[in-house]
Amino acid sequence: MKKIKIGMFGLGTVGSGVFKTLKDFPEISVEKIAVKNLNKTRNIDNFDNSILTQNPDDILENKEISIIIELIGGVHPAYEIIKKAIENGKHVVTANKELLAKHGKELFDYAEKHNTVILYEAAIAGGIPLIMPIKTILAGNKINKIEAILNGTTNYILTNMDKNEASYEHVLKEAQELGYAEADPTGDVEGFDSTYKLTTLATITFKKRIKLEYVYREGITNVQAEDIKYANELGYKIKLIAYATIDEQDNADVRVHPMFVSKDETLAHINYVTNAVTLCGTPVGKITLSGPGAGEMPTASSVVGDILSITRELGTTDYILPMMRCLHEQNQDAKVIPIEETENKYYLRLIAIDKVGGIAEMTKVFADKRINIETILMKEVTEDNTAEIVIVTETCKEKLIQETEKELLNKSYIKKIASKIRISK
Amino acid sequence: MKKIKIGMFGLGTVGSGVFKTLKDFPEISVEKIAVKNLNKTRNIDNFDNSILTQNPDDILENKEISIIIELIGGVHPAYEIIKKAIENGKHVVTANKELLAKHGKELFDYAEKHNTVILYEAAIAGGIPLIMPIKTILAGNKINKIEAILNGTTNYILTNMDKNEASYEHVLKEAQELGYAEADPTGDVEGFDSTYKLTTLATITFKKRIKLEYVYREGITNVQAEDIKYANELGYKIKLIAYATIDEQDNADVRVHPMFVSKDETLAHINYVTNAVTLCGTPVGKITLSGPGAGEMPTASSVVGDILSITRELGTTDYILPMMRCLHEQNQDAKVIPIEETENKYYLRLIAIDKVGGIAEMTKVFADKRINIETILMKEVTEDNTAEIVIVTETCKEKLIQETEKELLNKSYIKKIASKIRISK
Repeated sequence: MKKIKIGMFGLGTVGSGVFKTLKDFPEISVEKIAVKNLNKTRNIDNFDNSILTQNPDDILENKEISIIIELIGGVHPAYEIIKKAIENGKHVVTANKELLAKHGKELFDYAEKHNTVILYEAAIAGGIPLIMPIKTILAGNKINKIEAILNGTTNYILTNMDKNEASYEHVLKEAQELGYAEADPTGDVEGFDSTYKLTTLATITFKKRIKLEYVYREGITNVQAEDIKYANELGYKIKLIAYATIDEQDNADVRVHPMFVSKDETLAHINYVTNAVTLCGTPVGKITLSGPGAGEMPTASSVVGDILSITRELGTTDYILPMMRCLHEQNQDAKVIPIEETENKYYLRLIAIDKVGGIAEMTKVFADKRINIETILMKEVTEDNTAEIVIVTETCKEKLIQETEKELLNKSYIKKIASKIRISK
Repeated sequence: MKKIKIGMFGLGTVGSGVFKTLKDFPEISVEKIAVKNLNKTRNIDNFDNSILTQNPDDILENKEISIIIELIGGVHPAYEIIKKAIENGKHVVTANKELLAKHGKELFDYAEKHNTVILYEAAIAGGIPLIMPIKTILAGNKINKIEAILNGTTNYILTNMDKNEASYEHVLKEAQELGYAEADPTGDVEGFDSTYKLTTLATITFKKRIKLEYVYREGITNVQAEDIKYANELGYKIKLIAYATIDEQDNADVRVHPMFVSKDETLAHINYVTNAVTLCGTPVGKITLSGPGAGEMPTASSVVGDILSITRELGTTDYILPMMRCLHEQNQDAKVIPIEETENKYYLRLIAIDKVGGIAEMTKVFADKRINIETILMKEVTEDNTAEIVIVTETCKEKLIQETEKELLNKSYIKKIASKIRISK
């Protein structure tokens, strides 16, 4: 077997994990690693700094190197590095969810044109085997639904809010102290991270391109301790769900937002930083894959898995097979329907002034929109004469719920709509 | 792309699912199907009986056929059919867990020698992607622990006993009426089915051969409603667990028996006929794959996935790559340690005569064996002056617990040991 030479971009958390793991594979040689800072102390035993470079071309122009590993993240200069690697006939392994969500199709097409492959198992759900199984052993399926927890930080926060009956603010602060959330947590808590991952996952799974800008996104910053309490009472857990479906006419419904998930579902029991992906398809039915969605070693598992998939082929032939090529397959664009046109069950928490006939008048607003109410809970009236009312609807169009919300707020005895959370069917 | 011709053996539940699913793949042509009964009505639309044969050689001697699908189950004549197919240069896809557990190594070696592959994703955990992920995207890992629910019938029974607080006998009868358990349920409820699957799964995952005869096996027929009640009280669910670990010296601990599983673990929430497999390894950490473990269409998903993996390669080259060959990799035999040498936490339910000093005397038996007791529960004494005592031990050797059991039974006030169930760590 000929020795395969690779070049790495980035030697942070994941990069170090990849480097350590590759030591067990003598057939693979890391030739060069491009980094920003040559003198940073690396968390790797007996590390030889001479392998480092600040010049990307030391890798990109090295004809001996057949695979590059891109672990620097963000769009630039990752985009330029990957394009140049492809032009120079190198295969690419990347963990860059943002880049793939924004430029995936262009890069995949570019790789196809230059007879190379881009593998990206680590970009979505960290160490969980996902892209490769979908494209190999599940290839006989038409998968039409994805429901997933793709962000560890938000799942950690929601789990702690649930277990400790604590507020979002309190738990976020704690998570930041423990290093589970960043100083600026926006990318996670506002759902950007999940949205990037879902965009590529849905594109690859449905074999139709989903454009990032059409994916609806809502974070967890408005989820309150009261909502979690009511969720439990009603038999649910609240999770930040990455949700995507596609119908026979290629209409896709793709979105990231908090959701009530029934305790009967596996996803409801996925806690702390664990990620999970449920896929529904024919003939397989429903499967759920769960595990660590981030971290040095789990992510390294997927990066090394991708490297081995390429090196096994390169070791025996220079021909990259359809199994690899199919990982790019996506055909034409899907029609992503706007959130207003989607159908959901809803949980609404209203703050109302206690008054005779209030409930009757309020429920009439729903009835006029032909929205059926499945459950209604009203807890004791507080000292300031207000009451908290929880409504669970049957399935209806988002547009109708939005209209209902407006009309409710026109009623003088409705003080506010404290929460609206969609319920997973 | 050249058209790939395949031959099938068996057209029962799974065979029909495979046949229906393959209709979506025009590059694959089912040439012949060998069946016992040519005139049986088939549950397939517009089925053309002329494709059927009773003569296996119509497939095995047909040089045009490059892949055979074995779905008849059992050891004979599946063994002879597969051997002859391999001799004739054909690749094999099989769902036959019993055959692989008993003759896997021989058949894999035989295929290797004849330059063909045997794929068997459907033999273990039905539609769940398992073997292919372990051998491709997880190939960078050293996996050293498997904990799995591999049998739908027993999980269905245990789930119903739990949800309905019902007896084993009652639930089994119901399961038989609904078709979830066979008239003779031995293969499932005594753990044979799980043991076959675990033998191959552990062999492939650890890359060391596990011999079926060394795998400890205990079914669910002794699990009683009281045990499930106590499990809940103590924070557990009872599951029939297929368990396997291997250490650095290749000592393997491989067994199938009922286990207390903490409610914090995903496996505790895998209910009814769903299967799940938890794998622990480095670098990935812990992942859990769950889904339908049996059934016409889910199993067909895995069979077709295997077929496509082969046809994608055959469509472009006659060379079967290392990715496929590695699916057979197992090296030398593991040393499987006997159950007496394993270490576990234990749940014991004792029926004792209520007497002063009884508890002190009983707990001394444990202390003398240097077994620490973690929890002890004693419920009110019944009318016949007996008490039910539940003991949860800390981790200790099975041999010591067996000795303790013997000594307890020597004490006149211990009427019986009603249950002993191991606890997952």
